[in-house]
Amino acid sequence: MEDWSRGWAPPTYRVDEHGKVIGRRNDRVPHNWGRWGDLDEQGTTNFITADRLRAATRLVVTGEVVGCAIPIGEEMPVHPSRPSVVHTHWLTGADLVAGLVPDRAAGGFYGADDHLAMPLQSATHWDGLSHAFHQDTMYNGFWIGTVGAAGGARRCSTHLLADRLVGRGVLLDLPRDQGVDRLSPGHAITTDQLDSCAARQGVEVRTGDILLVRTGELPWFYSLEDKTPYWTGNHAGLSVTTVDWIYTHEVAAVALDNRTFEVTPFEKPYDVTYPLHSRLIRDLGLTIGELWWLEDLAATCARLDRWEFLLTAPPLPVTGASGAPTTPLAFF
Amino acid sequence: MEDWSRGWAPPTYRVDEHGKVIGRRNDRVPHNWGRWGDLDEQGTTNFITADRLRAATRLVVTGEVVGCAIPIGEEMPVHPSRPSVVHTHWLTGADLVAGLVPDRAAGGFYGADDHLAMPLQSATHWDGLSHAFHQDTMYNGFWIGTVGAAGGARRCSTHLLADRLVGRGVLLDLPRDQGVDRLSPGHAITTDQLDSCAARQGVEVRTGDILLVRTGELPWFYSLEDKTPYWTGNHAGLSVTTVDWIYTHEVAAVALDNRTFEVTPFEKPYDVTYPLHSRLIRDLGLTIGELWWLEDLAATCARLDRWEFLLTAPPLPVTGASGAPTTPLAFF
Amino acid sequence: MEDWSRGWAPPTYRVDEHGKVIGRRNDRVPHNWGRWGDLDEQGTTNFITADRLRAATRLVVTGEVVGCAIPIGEEMPVHPSRPSVVHTHWLTGADLVAGLVPDRAAGGFYGADDHLAMPLQSATHWDGLSHAFHQDTMYNGFWIGTVGAAGGARRCSTHLLADRLVGRGVLLDLPRDQGVDRLSPGHAITTDQLDSCAARQGVEVRTGDILLVRTGELPWFYSLEDKTPYWTGNHAGLSVTTVDWIYTHEVAAVALDNRTFEVTPFEKPYDVTYPLHSRLIRDLGLTIGELWWLEDLAATCARLDRWEFLLTAPPLPVTGASGAPTTPLAFF
Amino acid sequence: MEDWSRGWAPPTYRVDEHGKVIGRRNDRVPHNWGRWGDLDEQGTTNFITADRLRAATRLVVTGEVVGCAIPIGEEMPVHPSRPSVVHTHWLTGADLVAGLVPDRAAGGFYGADDHLAMPLQSATHWDGLSHAFHQDTMYNGFWIGTVGAAGGARRCSTHLLADRLVGRGVLLDLPRDQGVDRLSPGHAITTDQLDSCAARQGVEVRTGDILLVRTGELPWFYSLEDKTPYWTGNHAGLSVTTVDWIYTHEVAAVALDNRTFEVTPFEKPYDVTYPLHSRLIRDLGLTIGELWWLEDLAATCARLDRWEFLLTAPPLPVTGASGAPTTPLAFF
Repeated sequence: MEDWSRGWAPPTYRVDEHGKVIGRRNDRVPHNWGRWGDLDEQGTTNFITADRLRAATRLVVTGEVVGCAIPIGEEMPVHPSRPSVVHTHWLTGADLVAGLVPDRAAGGFYGADDHLAMPLQSATHWDGLSHAFHQDTMYNGFWIGTVGAAGGARRCSTHLLADRLVGRGVLLDLPRDQGVDRLSPGHAITTDQLDSCAARQGVEVRTGDILLVRTGELPWFYSLEDKTPYWTGNHAGLSVTTVDWIYTHEVAAVALDNRTFEVTPFEKPYDVTYPLHSRLIRDLGLTIGELWWLEDLAATCARLDRWEFLLTAPPLPVTGASGAPTTPLAFF
Repeated sequence: MEDWSRGWAPPTYRVDEHGKVIGRRNDRVPHNWGRWGDLDEQGTTNFITADRLRAATRLVVTGEVVGCAIPIGEEMPVHPSRPSVVHTHWLTGADLVAGLVPDRAAGGFYGADDHLAMPLQSATHWDGLSHAFHQDTMYNGFWIGTVGAAGGARRCSTHLLADRLVGRGVLLDLPRDQGVDRLSPGHAITTDQLDSCAARQGVEVRTGDILLVRTGELPWFYSLEDKTPYWTGNHAGLSVTTVDWIYTHEVAAVALDNRTFEVTPFEKPYDVTYPLHSRLIRDLGLTIGELWWLEDLAATCARLDRWEFLLTAPPLPVTGASGAPTTPLAFF
Repeated sequence: MEDWSRGWAPPTYRVDEHGKVIGRRNDRVPHNWGRWGDLDEQGTTNFITADRLRAATRLVVTGEVVGCAIPIGEEMPVHPSRPSVVHTHWLTGADLVAGLVPDRAAGGFYGADDHLAMPLQSATHWDGLSHAFHQDTMYNGFWIGTVGAAGGARRCSTHLLADRLVGRGVLLDLPRDQGVDRLSPGHAITTDQLDSCAARQGVEVRTGDILLVRTGELPWFYSLEDKTPYWTGNHAGLSVTTVDWIYTHEVAAVALDNRTFEVTPFEKPYDVTYPLHSRLIRDLGLTIGELWWLEDLAATCARLDRWEFLLTAPPLPVTGASGAPTTPLAFF
Repeated sequence: MEDWSRGWAPPTYRVDEHGKVIGRRNDRVPHNWGRWGDLDEQGTTNFITADRLRAATRLVVTGEVVGCAIPIGEEMPVHPSRPSVVHTHWLTGADLVAGLVPDRAAGGFYGADDHLAMPLQSATHWDGLSHAFHQDTMYNGFWIGTVGAAGGARRCSTHLLADRLVGRGVLLDLPRDQGVDRLSPGHAITTDQLDSCAARQGVEVRTGDILLVRTGELPWFYSLEDKTPYWTGNHAGLSVTTVDWIYTHEVAAVALDNRTFEVTPFEKPYDVTYPLHSRLIRDLGLTIGELWWLEDLAATCARLDRWEFLLTAPPLPVTGASGAPTTPLAFF
């Protein structure tokens, strides 16, 4: 248990009735605070418009569907700071075979019922705009104190994006572009690599896209008999130098197939841990995806030589949430 | 606690290596056992083909999106036989305001993290093909004993449908058709009512559709200050006499905006409780949806006078699951 | 979901490195702040000394043991503001009968395993000293901000009492004394009633005792087929006028067999809800017990005409906890 | 996820209305089936009598109390086959400092509330008589099929022992006896070692005792910065050759300070994994304790040169449970 031993002095700021720290400006550039209004809680998903979405549906040619979610069960690459995923059946067929009497508990129902407990930042998920803070604020200057234990995130809850994260998806398959199975641990993906990969794939990243970047990490996790190298090793991810590129390209969201989106160890020097979370989520208002399963998608894209598709990836609409699992689907 | 006091004798059947009860036939008609192969675990979602899905994407004209999920939080219409939904933040901004030190627990992360525990048959969800049994079998003759506590449903898991439940959606708005806010408690929707509603809406129910039927129950739940009438009252739902109609129309799935899909009290006479679950899920292999939020959808359909749309409703891909929440989206 | 719409201004106090609000005095009387030192986190359990405990063991004459905990399962009188208790087995014998293969999940173990999720203030439990606040402080002037989501209660955690709540127990059986099955709903137990009950029972309440007060509520709960009257009705409990009596008698802890310890509706006028929690826990540092099963104990006491006994009731030692279940035992 | 691929044929036995496999005898010796009646579910705790308990209270001389439970929190030595312990506060003081409004959720309560999810076989706990099976039966010939997901263990539930596990405790401090900090990994404690340790300590193990055996493992776990050696290493424990000794000494229960009670790797040859669980729990009806904190107890015993004491260790009374945490206390 953590102790409490530092003393406390009240901060000097005040917070307005909208939950914003009064007078607070964002002095990190680029940022998107105020871009969609002072009270916006949806960030770069605002780039997704009805027109762009309609156009994305026209990318569907064959009606083929590809799922991008990992199965939710026991053997999962959940970050070790988080608790286990616990899936239990409390009414089973095996019980009925054994003649057990669930009638009263089940209200006479003859079947099976189950229960799930999971961290919202496990499984294939979105990190929402109330997930990452810097100093006293989250995205758009909302006060971090609006996220509490009772009721969760009163501002920037992920459920506000439940009908937003759909549109044109683009996959950049870095390992394929570099001729490897997976990027080497600790590899920091640069903007040059993103650009050249897009060029070689013949695809353009546009405003409002949901950008998927493959590193090849997840299949390696599943292939390991002993997962220790995964838990203790380094990870490839986007370089912190891609922030401007992401800002300039006006993408609506970015998702990777690794555990924390970030390169680990973090690129030096860094002033805060998880520097991309801090810059992308808090400053740009960008929703980021982690633990996406991009293997089937990459194979389909390569087979069809098409790297754009209709993508639907609404988060589970948990109110007051700082993240949520999603079951992304790509349509070709 | 239930006691155990009935004695037990072993059954006389055997089960094959595929998990099917040997020699077991389904003597209830209609049924779909064997229709898509002896080992099929996806049932009527097989009606959804790439062609039909591609055609459904062509229904998108304006790019407008409508969500059909209820928010997941504390005040939810979960069936009282099931435990509460518990959403907790274990890293909060309020903690940080108070100067607490989550560094070690959070691995240095400065932000918020949360956790969710829920019955898989709560929230806007699909009841999967391992959810409802009759005698010794579930859909397609798979043995109910393949659904256990350890590992859950080895057959007919809902996650097998994670990339299936997308296609043409059709809404039948019964209350609107009947000029009421909601169907009266205990009202059993008949095939005549479905047909005349479709006719008046000018929409046709086709093979492979995901059919949504509005009863108006959920807004009533949310409007109640004291929820007791909801917990103790009766419910409108589909009549058990609609089974043939559903079979004949070859729909891929059916979802309602009520608590159990069924009329309560159950129409008499009935040989098993939850008779529609038993007939639709177990005999037809039909995935059914409960607690869908159809108010916004109904308003949009009425405004546009269009009752068909592209619908995406993949279940959360929990392995071995007998049901799963979904975040359905309708595209116009 | 609660919204956030009130604005915020920082408080004017500071907190020292021990977690105490600097300069804060308790102006409610009586109180025990400072009585056992400025940094004491154990409150009135300090009245329990080795001598008193040793003497309590001498009360054991026959070796008879009586349990005072309700069973932890589905049908429990948990306060409706709290989530359900969820007990699930994830390895079962029924699974094994059905030939399921839990080997990998269970690491080869052949048996049963289970999991429990519960509010710490459900079941027969203690409310700890970090459970009730008033203004900015809890017991002994510790800042309420030391209780957070990450790590829980850094001050006044219930686990600090894990080896404390043992000693002489005394039962006051109010319903028996008044010739009724249970006190009437809304009945506020007065000091006169406590005194006359003790006198008629021939027992004295002394410094360091754990005082148990029976209202007869729990057996009524279990007897109800429909629990609605319990959930919606009033409750008997200790009057807020007993605070001085409790202070003067220097008891170490007090436990009741009702849901919230308090009379409901609260006696008027009251300045805060749950006025006894506020006065007893926060001002006196008194640990209070709820939902104790006193029926068997009362029957034993009456049979033996002995109302004092050795009582052991350590809380489950959850770190950073604001309360914890206990399995109290009385020895005669 | 485990698959299901083995086929199934029904067993040939029948089960009577008491849940016992008809005609099944235990051919392993020694065993205690039938010793306390054909329907006994409490096993060797039957050795604890009122007389023995009363005598144990006379061991209390100074009134000193020593706790034997590990703290329940994040960093726990839970067996890796089991999910994490998750303790969350859903009402916090930090929330209130931040001006958040928990009133509605909390029903007006001004304080803190928390929630705990844990495997019942984690923390300092008892493995109950429905925890370990062999072939088709558990203790006393009860059918393993009486333990299901719905309702848990209908036979041999741990809550039946809630007022039983109290009496004379005896500690055998093996590391101290051997002059080491902890027994070496993989060390199998023999009956000779138990006897000579008892002799040197000058203490006798008697009928009805709760025997505690120290290996020194837990402090080593807590001392590790990187816990990997604990998760992947071997463990000292009781040799499977101690079964007769335990049977002959008629102890009521045995608890150790290690993770699984057993030596790992298991002593060869063994016919089943966890051979001591199988022999002690299922054949003898012995309740066994794991993860007990014996460091403070050992220090007290050594200081006082007394190795016997009054011990109270009731399990949390979860109905239908196959195990339960306990907060053991030793009184001197």
